[in-house]
Amino acid sequence: MGLPKDSGLLLHAKRPAGRRNLISDVPGVKVGSATINGGDVHTGVTVVLPHEGNLFKEKVMAGVSVINGFGKSTGLLQIEELGTIETPIALTNTFSVGTVLEALTRYMLEQNEEIGVTTGTVNCVVTECNDGRLNDIRGMHVKEGHVRAALAAAGEEFEEGAVGGGTGMVCLGLKGGIGSASRVIRADNQDYVVGALVMTNFGEPGNLVIGGRHYDTGICKTAEKRDKGSVIILIATDLPLNERQLKRVAKRSMIALGRVGSFCGNGSGDIAIAFSTANRLSHYSDTDILPVRMFYDEHIDNVFEAAVEAVEEAVISSLYHADSMIGIRGNTAIGLKEFLETYNQ
Amino acid sequence: MGLPKDSGLLLHAKRPAGRRNLISDVPGVKVGSATINGGDVHTGVTVVLPHEGNLFKEKVMAGVSVINGFGKSTGLLQIEELGTIETPIALTNTFSVGTVLEALTRYMLEQNEEIGVTTGTVNCVVTECNDGRLNDIRGMHVKEGHVRAALAAAGEEFEEGAVGGGTGMVCLGLKGGIGSASRVIRADNQDYVVGALVMTNFGEPGNLVIGGRHYDTGICKTAEKRDKGSVIILIATDLPLNERQLKRVAKRSMIALGRVGSFCGNGSGDIAIAFSTANRLSHYSDTDILPVRMFYDEHIDNVFEAAVEAVEEAVISSLYHADSMIGIRGNTAIGLKEFLETYNQ
Amino acid sequence: MGLPKDSGLLLHAKRPAGRRNLISDVPGVKVGSATINGGDVHTGVTVVLPHEGNLFKEKVMAGVSVINGFGKSTGLLQIEELGTIETPIALTNTFSVGTVLEALTRYMLEQNEEIGVTTGTVNCVVTECNDGRLNDIRGMHVKEGHVRAALAAAGEEFEEGAVGGGTGMVCLGLKGGIGSASRVIRADNQDYVVGALVMTNFGEPGNLVIGGRHYDTGICKTAEKRDKGSVIILIATDLPLNERQLKRVAKRSMIALGRVGSFCGNGSGDIAIAFSTANRLSHYSDTDILPVRMFYDEHIDNVFEAAVEAVEEAVISSLYHADSMIGIRGNTAIGLKEFLETYNQ
Amino acid sequence: MGLPKDSGLLLHAKRPAGRRNLISDVPGVKVGSATINGGDVHTGVTVVLPHEGNLFKEKVMAGVSVINGFGKSTGLLQIEELGTIETPIALTNTFSVGTVLEALTRYMLEQNEEIGVTTGTVNCVVTECNDGRLNDIRGMHVKEGHVRAALAAAGEEFEEGAVGGGTGMVCLGLKGGIGSASRVIRADNQDYVVGALVMTNFGEPGNLVIGGRHYDTGICKTAEKRDKGSVIILIATDLPLNERQLKRVAKRSMIALGRVGSFCGNGSGDIAIAFSTANRLSHYSDTDILPVRMFYDEHIDNVFEAAVEAVEEAVISSLYHADSMIGIRGNTAIGLKEFLETYNQ
Repeated sequence: MGLPKDSGLLLHAKRPAGRRNLISDVPGVKVGSATINGGDVHTGVTVVLPHEGNLFKEKVMAGVSVINGFGKSTGLLQIEELGTIETPIALTNTFSVGTVLEALTRYMLEQNEEIGVTTGTVNCVVTECNDGRLNDIRGMHVKEGHVRAALAAAGEEFEEGAVGGGTGMVCLGLKGGIGSASRVIRADNQDYVVGALVMTNFGEPGNLVIGGRHYDTGICKTAEKRDKGSVIILIATDLPLNERQLKRVAKRSMIALGRVGSFCGNGSGDIAIAFSTANRLSHYSDTDILPVRMFYDEHIDNVFEAAVEAVEEAVISSLYHADSMIGIRGNTAIGLKEFLETYNQ
Repeated sequence: MGLPKDSGLLLHAKRPAGRRNLISDVPGVKVGSATINGGDVHTGVTVVLPHEGNLFKEKVMAGVSVINGFGKSTGLLQIEELGTIETPIALTNTFSVGTVLEALTRYMLEQNEEIGVTTGTVNCVVTECNDGRLNDIRGMHVKEGHVRAALAAAGEEFEEGAVGGGTGMVCLGLKGGIGSASRVIRADNQDYVVGALVMTNFGEPGNLVIGGRHYDTGICKTAEKRDKGSVIILIATDLPLNERQLKRVAKRSMIALGRVGSFCGNGSGDIAIAFSTANRLSHYSDTDILPVRMFYDEHIDNVFEAAVEAVEEAVISSLYHADSMIGIRGNTAIGLKEFLETYNQ
Repeated sequence: MGLPKDSGLLLHAKRPAGRRNLISDVPGVKVGSATINGGDVHTGVTVVLPHEGNLFKEKVMAGVSVINGFGKSTGLLQIEELGTIETPIALTNTFSVGTVLEALTRYMLEQNEEIGVTTGTVNCVVTECNDGRLNDIRGMHVKEGHVRAALAAAGEEFEEGAVGGGTGMVCLGLKGGIGSASRVIRADNQDYVVGALVMTNFGEPGNLVIGGRHYDTGICKTAEKRDKGSVIILIATDLPLNERQLKRVAKRSMIALGRVGSFCGNGSGDIAIAFSTANRLSHYSDTDILPVRMFYDEHIDNVFEAAVEAVEEAVISSLYHADSMIGIRGNTAIGLKEFLETYNQ
Repeated sequence: MGLPKDSGLLLHAKRPAGRRNLISDVPGVKVGSATINGGDVHTGVTVVLPHEGNLFKEKVMAGVSVINGFGKSTGLLQIEELGTIETPIALTNTFSVGTVLEALTRYMLEQNEEIGVTTGTVNCVVTECNDGRLNDIRGMHVKEGHVRAALAAAGEEFEEGAVGGGTGMVCLGLKGGIGSASRVIRADNQDYVVGALVMTNFGEPGNLVIGGRHYDTGICKTAEKRDKGSVIILIATDLPLNERQLKRVAKRSMIALGRVGSFCGNGSGDIAIAFSTANRLSHYSDTDILPVRMFYDEHIDNVFEAAVEAVEEAVISSLYHADSMIGIRGNTAIGLKEFLETYNQ
């Protein structure tokens, strides 16, 4: 739902949000989460499905921007080389990437009997942030069943905040998590959507900026002082951007990170992935030459700024929807709503 | 001088400026400009010298970040491959890159008789923005003499605003130009400097942000509505960062652009170059293995944020020091100081 | 004409050459050279025109691979960002890049009155190798008139060997220069062409390989022992490859360099640029969304290997067509034909 | 052991091999494999340890070259950003990357109790090729125990051919596998080693080249005609190359692939990783500034060509040491020795 109108928080936005103000305003995009909460365990997995069909057989065009490569995501190399995504995108904690990758591989093999027999391999995209400040990350608590559950739960409506992969995240000194937002823009007299989903675990306490205003979250007692953690940024659109253009859009996420107070610290694995649902590329083709559509680069500024707005709001929304949490070793992360109650007094 | 204390403009800065609040606070760095102003001609060239010695024989380590590659700078490929700069860095208008490159090549050949005879070639770095909104850029008015004049004028004190390469630039709906600032940071109990110099010609009118506040520069009558133009960002330091680390620092410039209101529009060639004066690499060496120093990456956040602060202030300083100008075809760009007089009423 | 059938030199080629066995077998592609030969001066400029129309208004898709970035080419950044070429491509000596860039800029401004007034700038592509072993490169003898002459001379038939930009080049211990070749491949039951043009100035004497056989060119008396110099590789096709795919094709040039004996030495600026004439992208567009065609990646191996074959033959052809030359300081480079007469005895 | 002197196969090599002619000629480097062979299962895992100490606490400098990104390796992003490797490097089949990553993560957590508690995360490097032509890759038969076994088996002496990760690989129409070789070079009057280890699964049948001679492996009956599969290339040295220089060395692997007949086909994930054992970078440091050594770039050609030679020989050695194998679905891959017996008659 993004940032509600009655939140009292105002971002500088020029474009209207989509119907749900979620990445799922892009038709076909679905999101699901499995959350593990209990004792010292605060983690999970979130999945984003670019469309409802067989993703391996009908790939979507995609581009990646590695804003800061202190990260362990998988599958990005092949996106860069081939310009496509062919699986759901998973978001989880750093030490669970292997488990989730294995689970996602099994899932894709089940759905496509020919992979590894008559056709080649499959490139699973698994992204991560380090939730070790609140979660027993060494316990590696995410299992194959959680991936299955997240996939089964995928829908157009979904929760934000401390859910799924975002359960144990900490951002800019406050409780982070999953956030989403969208923007509607016009192209050739039609409405299109640019949607964002983020998993926020970045930023130095004291650096939080909302709508141009600095908030000294450094006063929260247990917050660490360094910009550790990471952020995963997914951008979806039904505009026919090609792989080069999607990479350009993904790159603009760094502007949104700047708007909310990040300077992209050394230890923050900041990864942005953008995909378009407009050109589906078949795994099999009888012809060598394929018709596709692309966007006129001279008009792309509207898309760039819409993406910046959606990512910025998604980040603040991830904070807004996350409640305070006491995690492992007694580490506490205050939720933005609770923080604001005190701060504004 | 950066932004003066009595400017009434307050940025979010955590670190003190250097003595001059200029890139030349980094010992050895010098800056010179040649300005051409008259009739429809408002252009020029600015040069930055990384140190006072023979740059070809004593190279400095450097890294580049191509934030948006809609630009015509020369010399960046070799910086990426070899991690060094071996000439002054020139900043000029887009159509004068060839002329300035030829002039800088002649200058380097004069200073080094062996280039092209007993040793190889020289990699001149020439950067540019499109000043065609105010300047008769098609006239190609920059000549070899201007490059010589800028080199001769190079010193530790220099003017900001509508001078040198920045003479005819327009930024965020206002008059742009050359700006500079610096920050002092501690490392291993010593003071070091991170300095920035920018040539600002980017940004959409209406998007200007200073210290978190939006200014609607879109009300200026002649301003174009699109984010055209470009920005060149130079970052210097006496900290021993290596070429990989300098590239990381250069990349953080995008955060500073976000802070002042840019979304890095399609037509904006946004290029950042960072160099360190700490490790000088000799062109000639008798040994195969060289001792150098590098920075401990886990402590680099301080450098990152210092660079963001210096670049942000350099951009606002470039606007602050530029007076209003009426250029070719009657196009007008209002200076920030004049704009603020009206705006704040 | 590539390597003539009666040359006695046999490469491992699986595909037939085009009609001329030149890059101009790709319909619309033209090549022209201006050669300066006399005394110590052995240099010039060569231009490649991707099509016969207005290149700025009808751009071609392109991709770049920087194999080794010890080079001073201009215009590559923007190809990477926007995926297009909008001017002729010039090849010249290293110190003449500035002059040729200025000349090409003037030429483009003349042809397009709106550049710098109602529309933005133009990205001229100028590439280079260091011909200082044979040519008085410090003299900077290439002038604007030579660029004009090369453009005026452009045609489908053109000379190879020691002409134009290739006049003073040295390659693998022998006389280098301009070379070209082409391959015909089938796609969707139609014939298409992959053509290559190279300017060869790379490689260590003694490392020359032709068709798998090593030739000890190190016995040539004046040859230097180090792999200095560079190579510029242009690949053209009328297949509708997009910018990502063209970059992949350009990258395969490194395989061809391996086949002829290079290990891509430190000082060799090895740059490959590939463009397709199939999708012309208009500078102006009324619509936001454009129809284009792309190639099915799973079938692209045929294009990859055709490009490798064409580049390999173009390199050997550049040697074959270059006669022995005595250059500055008495430096000599033996032509391949002369070398083989002695060597095979 | 590389290619034995009595193999009858002669490569063009200018430099002597190290004592073992293995990557482990670089002091401290160890290699171990776990092989799974039986029924339809022909796969495994190989690990390379850059040194004998705690890799997380004493990292090695490293660089990556993604020759063709159709691959699923993990850990490469962070090598690119930070220039270090901090775990063993694993080589396995494509669908086992998740399992091996999980196992390697567990191993690293055991060895370093502070990871995920008082310090951040760990970046495990897992690389892969698709062994589905001979192996029941869909069965995902590699388990955590195999990773442990490979780590336990690591030593300076190790088997080449169809072992470990290379068990089920196919290369250039023949049986592929693990191969290794080394070269000794002089720098500053001392001997240093450049070693290579490869896992070979690339190349089109019919394209095999050994020492300049083409071998028509296309006559082997069951070989597929397309260049599928991949190759993983590891290069180690005790020369103090920095991260940029190691990336340059890794990139030269593509030349070696060209020498043995590859054109780097679309479906081939060709990844090269180079590391140096000379500069160990501590995870913890009390000082901000660290002394390191780097190599003088002007002398690096010797390293480049040594790496090309070592990789080329490692590839041919992987074929030489692999015996013929009948795999899943009756697919057969002939070993090079058996092939040569027939071919040369």
